[in-house]
Amino acid sequence: MTNNLMDRRQAVLGQNVPTFYENPVHLTKGEGVWAWDINGQKYLDCYNNVPHVGHCHPHVVAAISAQAATLNTHTRYLHEGVIEYAERLTAKFHTDLDQLIMVCSGSEANDIALRMAQAVTGKTGIIATDNTYHGNTMAVSQLSSRKPPIGGYAANIRHVPAPDTLRPVGGTTEGQAQAFAHKIQNAIDDLEVSGHGFSGLLFCPTFANEGLPDLPADFMKPAAKVVRSAGGILISDEVQPGFGRTGDNWWGYEWLGLSPDVVTLGKPMANGHPVAAVVAKASVMSEFRNAFSYFNTFGGNPVSCAAASATLDVIEQDGLITNSKLVGCDFLERLQAIKHDGIANVRGRGLFIALELETDGVANEALAANVVEYARNNGMLMGRTGRNRNILKLRPPMPFSVQNAREATNILTAAFKKF
Amino acid sequence: MTNNLMDRRQAVLGQNVPTFYENPVHLTKGEGVWAWDINGQKYLDCYNNVPHVGHCHPHVVAAISAQAATLNTHTRYLHEGVIEYAERLTAKFHTDLDQLIMVCSGSEANDIALRMAQAVTGKTGIIATDNTYHGNTMAVSQLSSRKPPIGGYAANIRHVPAPDTLRPVGGTTEGQAQAFAHKIQNAIDDLEVSGHGFSGLLFCPTFANEGLPDLPADFMKPAAKVVRSAGGILISDEVQPGFGRTGDNWWGYEWLGLSPDVVTLGKPMANGHPVAAVVAKASVMSEFRNAFSYFNTFGGNPVSCAAASATLDVIEQDGLITNSKLVGCDFLERLQAIKHDGIANVRGRGLFIALELETDGVANEALAANVVEYARNNGMLMGRTGRNRNILKLRPPMPFSVQNAREATNILTAAFKKF
Repeated sequence: MTNNLMDRRQAVLGQNVPTFYENPVHLTKGEGVWAWDINGQKYLDCYNNVPHVGHCHPHVVAAISAQAATLNTHTRYLHEGVIEYAERLTAKFHTDLDQLIMVCSGSEANDIALRMAQAVTGKTGIIATDNTYHGNTMAVSQLSSRKPPIGGYAANIRHVPAPDTLRPVGGTTEGQAQAFAHKIQNAIDDLEVSGHGFSGLLFCPTFANEGLPDLPADFMKPAAKVVRSAGGILISDEVQPGFGRTGDNWWGYEWLGLSPDVVTLGKPMANGHPVAAVVAKASVMSEFRNAFSYFNTFGGNPVSCAAASATLDVIEQDGLITNSKLVGCDFLERLQAIKHDGIANVRGRGLFIALELETDGVANEALAANVVEYARNNGMLMGRTGRNRNILKLRPPMPFSVQNAREATNILTAAFKKF
Repeated sequence: MTNNLMDRRQAVLGQNVPTFYENPVHLTKGEGVWAWDINGQKYLDCYNNVPHVGHCHPHVVAAISAQAATLNTHTRYLHEGVIEYAERLTAKFHTDLDQLIMVCSGSEANDIALRMAQAVTGKTGIIATDNTYHGNTMAVSQLSSRKPPIGGYAANIRHVPAPDTLRPVGGTTEGQAQAFAHKIQNAIDDLEVSGHGFSGLLFCPTFANEGLPDLPADFMKPAAKVVRSAGGILISDEVQPGFGRTGDNWWGYEWLGLSPDVVTLGKPMANGHPVAAVVAKASVMSEFRNAFSYFNTFGGNPVSCAAASATLDVIEQDGLITNSKLVGCDFLERLQAIKHDGIANVRGRGLFIALELETDGVANEALAANVVEYARNNGMLMGRTGRNRNILKLRPPMPFSVQNAREATNILTAAFKKF
């Protein structure tokens, strides 16, 4: 059945469309932190951040079903849905981040954010960290340095080395924040000389795709100062850390003590319904709206807003941010107690945890792959990240419990015993 | 209530976010071809093509509700949903258009299509018609010539004059196809000289945003020949004409006798659920997949596929393409019978009809605006298009009936009597 489905998939989706795992998982059902495959095998989901409040949460499903049966149009007509949601969401941000554009994907959100930087500054240069990922549009995918695009990278993009736990920028942990800011200053100078000028820095406040490095809370202060001094704007990509994932706050930028001009949101926003957004200062929004005629057919439709609003309900009513903090601490301690020569560092904030694997000071990608496959074959979904794919990534739905943390730790302990 | 909502909207969405109509419509309910506002006023919907099989169609709502309650993940796991839908959808295309990428918006689809052209040719130059609209990403919005982007238009874009009913390219109706092809050849030559090279032509087969010109079925043959001779690919943007809108076929390119390399789909695909797609030849898909690492978190998720599949069910089971043809012919005849000095041309195919308004040979935007406002105030939703905003656009949900055509014609007749 699965083999047959793989053949059919290759025929209609293409020859080089990856699946997770050597033996792909054929899922059929999800509930809370659990998913089931076609054979009835149950998996503890430690990977998926999109079903943020749990797979198929009944409150979100009910909201989608009710609104889909009532009305689904666009924002050129008036509707309470988008306005009530916008009021409710922007209330969770710094007071000056008070306006919203709703779109369908984090990629669309970051694609807008880049143009906001351009509209505010009249310049086009953008700086991002290397080995990052902010989305899949032609413009945003230019920020990923993994594969050069046809025709080469756009001339207005500069990459700076991302912060790192084991190999800090500048060589020392203490000097990393200043060294990172210095790299940004160099990139700004280079953009100014090139004629593109500097419009802004786009960053993930947890540097999630680069391995979730362990950073002090004041890490971004020197970088932010450099960006501001050069007249650029700060864009915080909260697609991964947002909506309480890190357990401390609603947004990753808060923990860093920053006040970004633009924040982008995505994956967890409506528990899997295709919803994303840009939150910005009114002055930024106004510049963007004046410079670009932007309209998104599906963005902010009543069903999407109902799904997003119901997701907020559950986060609040079930205290999921506190849960993320408490269970995340417990989970981190359990994982830090696993003994294996290949575990170089275990770190995390809330329900977002990374285990960096090395052998003799060299990234051990094979060990990471073995552990991920072992987990899959023993009822647990997880992934890996980092530029060497040697960092195990644990990022479960937010209702994850201490009991779940214990179950996951048992599977990982067994995996590390085996390899 | 409405005024208060407008103030709240401005506060959270921004100061310059347009609504339709001088007196915006505050919708609360939709069913079939009808929508209702907050005061209980009923509107015959002659505008919205997104609720393709009718507002809130119960079969689509049921499919969304059932799948949302069962599982919603992404395409890195195996799931029948995306595969069954891809098989079913690609079967409706020319046999060599046999592979699919699912995304969230027509903008994302066209953004991919541009990169497919680049991947196949190794070049970056793109040609589009002027005054068009293919979407809102940074790359795709460059194809719109309405407002220059910050930093100016990308150097790899060329615009050619769109075909026109009353003011044909080249000056004569008979010579328009050749003149249009000649403009494309000039643009290709210019791109080759510039060093960008020519990768493809992106076009809407009904040129919907430029006023739905009345063209012969062989209109695109010379243009296609020029594109092919230069090694470029043909991208048919079916976001508006697709899924049987024109009443003749599933896709607009079929009526033109073309065999595009890439087709993009959007708005009507899942009756309002945020779903879009790119259908391409396997060879094109393979080049794209090799050149770019593309993944879309929400694209092809089980709920989106269920919504899209249910939409196909209704189109087929209710014979909506035939309905579009029959009711479209009837509606067109009724509209052509309206007498007014300002009506210069009435044309259309299926349930996609344009009334071009002129006075003394000059576009009459004011008359078009008056008619649209009159309709709104008398229970009918419609829009206008064209580079001078003087072309009335009628594009109702597909279950539109002869009785609905009669009702709409009565309202328009009264409007044209008044102005």
